[in-house]
This record gives sequence, structure tokens and C-alpha cells, in this order.
Amino acid sequence: MSDLVVVAAEPLRAFAREIFQKAGLPEDQAAVTAEVLVWADLRGHPSHGVIRVPLYAGWIGSGLINTNARPKVVLQKGALAKIDGEGAVGPAAMTPAVDVAIAQAREHAAAWVLVQDHTHAGAVGVYASRVAEAGFAAIVMSALRPMMAFHGTRGSAVSTNPVAIAMPGGLLLDMSTSSSSRGKLGVAKATGKPLPPGIALDKEGRPTTDPNAAETLTPMAGPKGAGLSLMIEALTSVALGNPLIATALTDRKLMTNHRQNSLIMAMDVSALGDLGLFKENLAALAKAIKSQPRAEGFERILMPGERGGNAFVNRSRDGVPIPPRSWQQVCDVAAKFGVTPPERIGA
Amino acid sequence: MSDLVVVAAEPLRAFAREIFQKAGLPEDQAAVTAEVLVWADLRGHPSHGVIRVPLYAGWIGSGLINTNARPKVVLQKGALAKIDGEGAVGPAAMTPAVDVAIAQAREHAAAWVLVQDHTHAGAVGVYASRVAEAGFAAIVMSALRPMMAFHGTRGSAVSTNPVAIAMPGGLLLDMSTSSSSRGKLGVAKATGKPLPPGIALDKEGRPTTDPNAAETLTPMAGPKGAGLSLMIEALTSVALGNPLIATALTDRKLMTNHRQNSLIMAMDVSALGDLGLFKENLAALAKAIKSQPRAEGFERILMPGERGGNAFVNRSRDGVPIPPRSWQQVCDVAAKFGVTPPERIGA
Repeated sequence: MSDLVVVAAEPLRAFAREIFQKAGLPEDQAAVTAEVLVWADLRGHPSHGVIRVPLYAGWIGSGLINTNARPKVVLQKGALAKIDGEGAVGPAAMTPAVDVAIAQAREHAAAWVLVQDHTHAGAVGVYASRVAEAGFAAIVMSALRPMMAFHGTRGSAVSTNPVAIAMPGGLLLDMSTSSSSRGKLGVAKATGKPLPPGIALDKEGRPTTDPNAAETLTPMAGPKGAGLSLMIEALTSVALGNPLIATALTDRKLMTNHRQNSLIMAMDVSALGDLGLFKENLAALAKAIKSQPRAEGFERILMPGERGGNAFVNRSRDGVPIPPRSWQQVCDVAAKFGVTPPERIGA
Repeated sequence: MSDLVVVAAEPLRAFAREIFQKAGLPEDQAAVTAEVLVWADLRGHPSHGVIRVPLYAGWIGSGLINTNARPKVVLQKGALAKIDGEGAVGPAAMTPAVDVAIAQAREHAAAWVLVQDHTHAGAVGVYASRVAEAGFAAIVMSALRPMMAFHGTRGSAVSTNPVAIAMPGGLLLDMSTSSSSRGKLGVAKATGKPLPPGIALDKEGRPTTDPNAAETLTPMAGPKGAGLSLMIEALTSVALGNPLIATALTDRKLMTNHRQNSLIMAMDVSALGDLGLFKENLAALAKAIKSQPRAEGFERILMPGERGGNAFVNRSRDGVPIPPRSWQQVCDVAAKFGVTPPERIGA
């Protein structure tokens, strides 16, 4: 990591928070947004980490993020709730939604919480894991604008809509419905290195490994990933009466709409039985699979979220590594707002 | 279809029902099971249709299906409910679970219903579509014994656990978490034709296209399908305190355990807004995607469940086609119980 900038988590969080605040976010929204980005860095997902600070700051400046938004519960009926994000920065809408999901699951043993109209949520795994840490099983989904082919379309027709599932006591699955992330495509475009086969289509809708010919991402597992992504749009955007896909495909100006809709589902595992026993059975499940004979070429069998959990422990102790060029871009934005970068570890 | 046996749906249903009843199922359980199998046949999924009658009849005879089971709600707390299937034939546990999910979603606007300990549920899409037909968005998942590799294991470590998602007004996604179905593997083994690449592993855990070398199925999209399958086991079996995977991997005798655990989640879309508008927006979503430019090699863009919906219309009118060999096997079982096969159409 000698060529990487390394910064401790807490100062990094404070740094991002201060930039967002100076850029125009209310203090509490700046804080939760910094928290979510640094969580992704700690988990080893830099694509959703502080390297997004310049992007978010730009959105605040352009008005794409509504700094006057005050996300609130606008509907509550039994175990269902709806939060209007009012165009707020994603984490400022999703953080109260997590609290509502936990409260609803505590009262009704199960919950569905829909969140309408927010900008980029960050890594949705953070919200699922917060619900799980409170003792509830969680499923989180989020719907975005078109950036992935549907099975059989030539260009972007659905999104890479992510799904995260988390359990009390461990296990966190956080996956997109595309074959590969947009981040990977961006890196390949920047370096000119060939793409892995199967992840992208050219402008005719043909598979390509040429990053410069790549026009859109492919769905994970063809019709399955495409179908799952479509159903997430239906479960969130269509249910909320705030369609993202149909509107963008009908009016191409909306293809760059950065608003999202999300869904958090939660279940009170302790209503079904002892939570301690649940955690024991979950650990036994992980152990049984991890101790299976390994296929050729595999040194370890990893549980969902295990790599990220290990990274979290290491980076919480040793600091967050950031590529120098990305760090410079964050510092440039900080300078614009008169914010001083934190000390680097070992620098 | 000249070499296929064709039977009208209603007599086919009555035929299967009578066999199940003579084999030992109570009348109501025989009826709902026949209903679920013929639904799959009508939708064009013969692997989950009446060709399973001999298998089910065998399970009834061997006691694997508990004919004394009377599935019932054993826990209800707010929007959460638990049904004990008592080892019943799958549709006899899942059918009342659908009713409970609808009732819970009606009362609490959202629901999570867990179903413990039933045998093969059939195509889980039928349960999701029933919830949707009642006006609620539905997600159904089911957990089975190991029959698919986990990402990095040499042999079977998780299952092909299916997920179905259905919407009021249309759209039904019904997918397994494996790259391909066990049915496809079985057909290839029978015919000796090479498998499509990527769907199976040999006994060393290496990819193989030789059906006779194939030992287990691969997960859809590698770690994503494996992770999703594992989380379904956690959301159902582990939450219910009735683990299937850990027990089977620890005690290999249980690798052939045919019990399942399931989860039905439902949301009252009409609590969020007008159901008519929801259906309009859903139709607009489908239309927008279907009218996108097609990739090379694609003649049509199909929505989740569209092919099955078309098959349902055609087969409800024209009858259900069944391969002669499978039909003979069903008739052989029927003869054992003195049940007369229905008339064939055009035969």
C-alpha cells in the first residue's frame, strides 16, 4: 500500500462531513453521508467511498441534491411505511428509513418501508447491516435510472439495481443485478485493458471485451438478473407511483436522472425463537459450508460479506487506503471550501 | 405436438387429484396438489407438472410425505406468521400460507409468513401469483437440501433455492438461484447430449459439459447466486430453527431429505396509492422496455412470466401436452390405484 494515501477512519469521516457541510448540506445530513461513504471504504469498496465526495459536492452545488429536503414519514399503515426523501442526499433519506424499519419490525414483528426520491444511497449493504445489528433480518433493494441492458435489448433499459440481505449475528450479501459493476467498466475504460468476457455490450447489443466499445452493462445471469432488476423497479418505483425506468426510456433527458427509490424489509427473528439459537445456527451454517472440500483454484470459501468484514477490522485499525489521484481530487474540492485535509498515516 | 399426449386441464387435474387421494392424501390436500402441478403444466413448465405424480405418489407411499399432517398457523405476531407444515405435501402447506399472507397484508398492509417443514412445493411462482391476484405485491422464497455448489466448493453445498416475485396486474418472475435447472441436467444425462457450458461441475469441482461427468449444478452468477441461495436458507430454515443445509452437510444421510422451508412476503400496494394507477404504471414499464431496440439475435423482448402467461392461455384452450413416456409412467401409477386416465384430446 506504499503508493496509496492512508487516512484513519475518524478524521476521514470528519473531513468528508466538513466538505459536505461547507458545500451546503445541513450538519446532520453531512454527517450521515460521510458515515455511509467511509463505511464502504472500511469494507473495502472504494467505488462507494470517499472518492465520491467530489461527485456529491458537485450535485449539491448544481441543486441535483436538494439541500432543503427534510426526509420524513408521510404514510404509516400497520407494518408498512413510506418515507418521502424529497430529493435529499441518499444517506439522509435511508438513515431515518432504517430507524423506521427497526421500529416497525419491533412493533409488528415484520416491516416493509418504502423510500421515495433520494439521490445515490451509497452501498446499500450499510442499511441492511444496521437493521441486522439491531437484531432483525433485513432485505434492502434500490432502484436507479437505466444503465444496464434488459435481456434482449440493445442498449440500457433497466438498472444495476442492488439487493442487500443481512442477518443478525453475521452474513451480509450486497450485490448488484448486473454481471459486473460500472466501476469496473470505468477502470477498464481509463486503463484500456480488455474487459472480462460477458460483462458489457457494444452499441449493437453484441458482447464486447473492448472497454472503449462498451456501451452498457449486461444483467447477471441474463434473464434472471434482468428480471430481478425489473421487479425491484416494480416493488419500489412503481409501487411508489414514482417510475424511473419508464419515464427515462420515454424521455431520454431523464436517462441521467440521479434519483432513486428504495425498499427496506425487516423481520423480527426473535419473535420466532431464541435469537441466540438463531445466531448459533447461522454460525453452524457458515462453518458447514466453509469446511466443504474446495474446487480446484480456490484457497478459501468465503461467506457473503466475509471479505468486507475482514477489511473493516483491518482498516478500522490501520486506516483507509485511497489511490493518490482520487485523494487529490477530494483535496481539490476541499480546498475550494477551505477545508483542511486530515493527516495521512505514515506520511 | 403430434407425438405428445394432450389432455385438457380440468380432467388432468381430476386425474392427479384422484391418484393422490387413492395413494393416501386427504381429499383437500390431493386437490390443492393437483391444482399446483397442473398450473405448472399450463404455464409451460412440465418439469414441475403432472410428470411428478409418480414421484409424489411414491413419497406418499414411503411416508416421506406425512399424510396425517394438518398444516396450521402456530404463531402470529403482528405482520409475522408461522405455519407448521408438519411434513405435509408442499402445496397443502403453501396454499394456506398464501391465504395467511393475504389476510396479514390486508390487516397490516405488509406481511412476512414463514412455512416450516413441507415437501416439494412445486413451482413457487404459483403462490406468488396467487398473492398478486389478490392485489398484493409478493415475494416467495423456498429452501431445499444441498444440490448446488457454493462458490468455491467442489460438490453440493447449498441448494437451487427459488425466488418468485409477482405484481398485481402482471409480471411474474420465477427463478432458481442456480445457472440451470436439475431438470435440464436430467434430460442431458438421459440423452447423452453435451451440457451448455457453465452449468455443471464434475467430481473435482471443475466445469464440465459432459452430462455423465456432471456431479452438481453451479450457482447463477457465481458468488451472487451462491450468496442469494445461502441467504434464503438463513431467512427461512435458520429463522425457523429448522436448518436444512448445515444438518445435511454434517450428516450425509440427510442429503436426500426432501423437506423444505419457505417464506411469503406481501405488501398492500393499494395502501400506497391507487391500484389502478399502479397497474397502469406497471404496464407502461413493460411497454417501454419491450419497445426498446433489440440486440442481434433477439426477435422479441419478453417480460418476466410473459412466455408462461401466453402458454397458460393457449394450453387452457388447447390442452396440456405431455411426453408419451412420462404420461405412461403417470398412467402406470394410476393403474396401481385403479384410477382411469382421462380422455386424450385428438387421440
